[in-house]
Amino acid sequence: MKIDHIGLAVNNLEDAVKMYEKLFEVTPFHFEEIATQKVKVCFIQMGDQKLELIEATEEDSPIYKFIQKKGEGLHHIAYKVKDIYHELETMEAKGFRLIDRVPRLGALNKLIAFMHPKDTHGVLIELCQSQLDE
Amino acid sequence: MKIDHIGLAVNNLEDAVKMYEKLFEVTPFHFEEIATQKVKVCFIQMGDQKLELIEATEEDSPIYKFIQKKGEGLHHIAYKVKDIYHELETMEAKGFRLIDRVPRLGALNKLIAFMHPKDTHGVLIELCQSQLDE
Repeated sequence: MKIDHIGLAVNNLEDAVKMYEKLFEVTPFHFEEIATQKVKVCFIQMGDQKLELIEATEEDSPIYKFIQKKGEGLHHIAYKVKDIYHELETMEAKGFRLIDRVPRLGALNKLIAFMHPKDTHGVLIELCQSQLDE
Repeated sequence: MKIDHIGLAVNNLEDAVKMYEKLFEVTPFHFEEIATQKVKVCFIQMGDQKLELIEATEEDSPIYKFIQKKGEGLHHIAYKVKDIYHELETMEAKGFRLIDRVPRLGALNKLIAFMHPKDTHGVLIELCQSQLDE
């Protein structure tokens, strides 16, 4: 199992981008608004992995609620899978609770699904499947 | 800049290891107690990255305090550096506050230093330098 990206909740995408430019001299390769999830995101390549910076666009966005509760910072780890439908079935059969039993469309046109952090020692885990060859 | 590992704060190392074995069929390759930091840790290889599971061994351990405040979950991202002394100087010159101005010995005999999360949008960043060829 390989890590695809690490999601970071931020108050302001532009400020966070400036910070990463100053910190590591890296620039995002992609910006996107995901209206269904009430967020805007950007991705920064870090070696083989990516950081996903995520800003809430509405007060009822899960990211807004997360920051209200825990503050800005580490939000989720996304793992690459080849067949997300099969993985979700397997995880459920093993007794893991799923937030998304059916994958939905995430950033970069990937199929994504979140697992419930209560079963994974507080870590919000995303499974993500690229619809392109990677 | 490449990610070396993601640190996860857990209440109980054995329980968390069992969960990762069930979740991804992965087993830790290294267990270690770091008395100076009042933690015990283990590492799980996930592709090119590692997960570091961290349990507090004392109530005045930073990990104990972290879990009391935020609950179990994502704790830090560690980035590989080749010359940690130089990186720390550079980060300080750029205005980033450091938790460790002088590197200390971490798990796997690496030189490590933490940066202050207040300057990095709530993300606790570790810089780590291997003392072996990697």
